[in-house]
Amino acid sequence: MLKKQRLFTPGPTPLLPAAMAAMAQSEVHHRTADFRAAYKQVLEDLHYFYGTTNDVFLFTSSGTGAMEAAVSNLFSPGDAVLVAQAGKFGERWTEIAKAFGLSTDIVEAPYGEPVMADAVRAKLGSRKYAGLLFQASETSTGVAHDVQAFAAAAAEHGALSIVDAITGLGVMPIDVDGWGLDVVIGGSQKSLAIPPGLAFASVSARALEQSKKAALPRFYFSYAREKKAADKGDASWTPSTALILALAQSLKFVRELGRETLIANAAFLAEATRAAVQAMGLQLFAKSSPSSAVTAVCSPEGVDSRVIIRALRDRFNLIVANGQGSMEGKLFRLAHLGYYDYPELAGSIAALELVMNSIGHKVELGAGVRAAQQVAAARL
Amino acid sequence: MLKKQRLFTPGPTPLLPAAMAAMAQSEVHHRTADFRAAYKQVLEDLHYFYGTTNDVFLFTSSGTGAMEAAVSNLFSPGDAVLVAQAGKFGERWTEIAKAFGLSTDIVEAPYGEPVMADAVRAKLGSRKYAGLLFQASETSTGVAHDVQAFAAAAAEHGALSIVDAITGLGVMPIDVDGWGLDVVIGGSQKSLAIPPGLAFASVSARALEQSKKAALPRFYFSYAREKKAADKGDASWTPSTALILALAQSLKFVRELGRETLIANAAFLAEATRAAVQAMGLQLFAKSSPSSAVTAVCSPEGVDSRVIIRALRDRFNLIVANGQGSMEGKLFRLAHLGYYDYPELAGSIAALELVMNSIGHKVELGAGVRAAQQVAAARL
Repeated sequence: MLKKQRLFTPGPTPLLPAAMAAMAQSEVHHRTADFRAAYKQVLEDLHYFYGTTNDVFLFTSSGTGAMEAAVSNLFSPGDAVLVAQAGKFGERWTEIAKAFGLSTDIVEAPYGEPVMADAVRAKLGSRKYAGLLFQASETSTGVAHDVQAFAAAAAEHGALSIVDAITGLGVMPIDVDGWGLDVVIGGSQKSLAIPPGLAFASVSARALEQSKKAALPRFYFSYAREKKAADKGDASWTPSTALILALAQSLKFVRELGRETLIANAAFLAEATRAAVQAMGLQLFAKSSPSSAVTAVCSPEGVDSRVIIRALRDRFNLIVANGQGSMEGKLFRLAHLGYYDYPELAGSIAALELVMNSIGHKVELGAGVRAAQQVAAARL
Repeated sequence: MLKKQRLFTPGPTPLLPAAMAAMAQSEVHHRTADFRAAYKQVLEDLHYFYGTTNDVFLFTSSGTGAMEAAVSNLFSPGDAVLVAQAGKFGERWTEIAKAFGLSTDIVEAPYGEPVMADAVRAKLGSRKYAGLLFQASETSTGVAHDVQAFAAAAAEHGALSIVDAITGLGVMPIDVDGWGLDVVIGGSQKSLAIPPGLAFASVSARALEQSKKAALPRFYFSYAREKKAADKGDASWTPSTALILALAQSLKFVRELGRETLIANAAFLAEATRAAVQAMGLQLFAKSSPSSAVTAVCSPEGVDSRVIIRALRDRFNLIVANGQGSMEGKLFRLAHLGYYDYPELAGSIAALELVMNSIGHKVELGAGVRAAQQVAAARL
């Protein structure tokens, strides 16, 4: 049969057609009035996407670059930071902080569970921390954190709140200014539906002040340099022009759709997915606080999740993600963030039913889709 | 919610991504060695798509242009032709033949039914006809004709068999050479998954001979001129270069997928659709011989089909076709030909269930998809 490739991975996500067209038309020099105007507009529209009046800086890097930038721009040798760690991306915060020689403490939750705000608050009270580093949505496990409570706890203890919201922005409500989030990190290949290669950071006035005193070594990633350049509509270094022109289209799409609608869409698809897979007799990996970015589904007892992932790819050209780290082979992950809609979710659930049946996990045909339909009927 | 536009119309159909990319790269002059090589390859690949050793000509026109070309290139004033007419496209044959002053007889079936081969054969025996004009698949009603039997009847009575296979090629088995089809007409925006603007005609040696004597007036559409040009890798007139480069990609895709697989895919999607809509309590318009190109579904008693079509568009951005002519408002049509796959069919059936419920035609949620899933489980 004919099989169209579809990404149901939590980044990269399906590309917005207008963004693809923009990339194909990106023969442009970056030190020109035309490009500066586009860049200024992108920075302005990023404020709408973030819903913040803080500065928003744009880096030509992956999201990990903007994570490193937060560490190197905000701290000094000898500073202590606390990492709320609930999966592979929490571990990445720890690795970065340690690579820069910070005194790094961890408040941890097992894979599949969120770090609780009470635990974060208690740990913050145990010692003077310069910053609290955490994920809004831990993509490796499909678990969301209580961003508002974490930020309040950090503020209470005089620590900067630094959130990797790479799969949180445009996916879950994040009130950057209202909740007092100091640094909020995003990436291009998530809810913004363009390829990887750009990262963003909103930076509060307090964080900018602290960055002036921060003594860790940095060069490529510099808040001070980006701020100076951005005021003229420039990037510090040669920027990824094709992706920035794509981003302009993506942000235009988000403005037209509405940031709240983009978020509600992911929440709806996640809810329908959870209902569908449970109706198919499958278990959710997130024991509580499931993320709207991605739903991690446990492979049935005795079935390597790679068998399911391969069958979805071979039989339907649907690309879904494996578990990460210690969860590899034990779960598969279906994404909802960005440019997805309900008919394709229903279609992918139908494909999953057929695949589960074919590997011996008997599912009443249509049962998963019916459960999703009931969510849709109530929500649409 | 986020809504991606999807065409479920029987032409234009969803575009092949590689073809879109080719159109974006179509800055090319048509009288160059590069373009001639591409054009020659396209003509060669069209032979594979058709499965014929006959000449295949390419016109920069819509399919109707190639229909006119068949009439103007093959007949002379005073000739009689027989049209097998079972819907709007059958009526188009009649209009063209009459516009060129031919003595035009009709063997007709009511909308929703095919013309039977026996009726065609009987009528062909009643008078000397120079040609038999018919559709392989009557797109307005979703009904297929017995192309092989029609061709045999025409040959038996010394008439050329001229088939509009615009929604038949790549959709249903058509053995051009084995069945002795004299002219087989195709268009770009159907199973080949590129935009409208190109039409094709395979022409038998017998038809080419007859065209030399045919005296109807013609200029733009000339088999003789195209044959001469094609041998040099040229088109007679300035061709639609962007679409031809897109067609090159599309034909490459068909070669890789396999013509038989493209046909089997449409047949499978059509079968699953028929099962799904019937499980939803809806009636098929085609009383027999349903086409794999498009399924025409009757609107429930008292419901204008425009209400369903509008709701699918407004609530899901799914574009489906209305009935045509006297069937407008009475049915809607879901297409299967070309670049469609099963997950998107299942998703569109899910959307249709929700829409039918919302307009008061109660459907058990999931019932339509379940029926499609049962077809898929047996076929995939």
